[in-house]
Amino acid sequence: MSQSTSGSTVEAIRATVRAYLSALESGSAAAIVALYADDATLEDPAGSEPRVGRDAIARFYRAVDGSPQHTELLSLRVSGQSAAFHFRVTTRVGDAEYEIEPIDVMTFDEQARITGMWAYWSPADMRRIR
Amino acid sequence: MSQSTSGSTVEAIRATVRAYLSALESGSAAAIVALYADDATLEDPAGSEPRVGRDAIARFYRAVDGSPQHTELLSLRVSGQSAAFHFRVTTRVGDAEYEIEPIDVMTFDEQARITGMWAYWSPADMRRIR
Repeated sequence: MSQSTSGSTVEAIRATVRAYLSALESGSAAAIVALYADDATLEDPAGSEPRVGRDAIARFYRAVDGSPQHTELLSLRVSGQSAAFHFRVTTRVGDAEYEIEPIDVMTFDEQARITGMWAYWSPADMRRIR
Repeated sequence: MSQSTSGSTVEAIRATVRAYLSALESGSAAAIVALYADDATLEDPAGSEPRVGRDAIARFYRAVDGSPQHTELLSLRVSGQSAAFHFRVTTRVGDAEYEIEPIDVMTFDEQARITGMWAYWSPADMRRIR
């Protein structure tokens, strides 16, 4: 269902969130970074020093490049030109498998590119599942 | 489990979130507003005109005063001095019952009082359950 707003539609914002999780899942830092606006800011975890601009954001996602992860969208709420979503990420490290379910907040420009990202989680939320 | 940060502990922040849901549940606007810092800001829904200061926030919560609601915390993530949480609110209006599951973000001061609140939801997320 599409719903008009003054900028991106709810559906365009939902599509960007789904594309973000798909890009995380594929382990392609380039695909993730392409979803961000040039002057975007990123705080992961929220409250940490913000990374500003596409180059700094690309350096941040270098850590996941080439590391496919399983992702699952648990809940997504769109509010104006921003969204909050709860999702699960499962990562394999050697024989071990870790799961975390952060809540991320994103803001978007009129092309539904990500202009801001804040990831809410703490190391205590990560658990080994195998 | 308590965890030190530069300001409030994770446990103090969790306690404020739980107290917020309890206050919503009891339908006491005064109990809700008491959890906010004097100069707090509130955006509900996120992206709408912010309400700034305790008086404006008190006016916002007047709508729920004397209207007990059922609340359930679905997920809570604390990140530094902020938290994101997903919760369910069930409200009765006459014979009808409505349910919504917003994701809220809050920031906190060193006494774990709420300094900022952003509620992520849209009217399309509300559903009639009875």
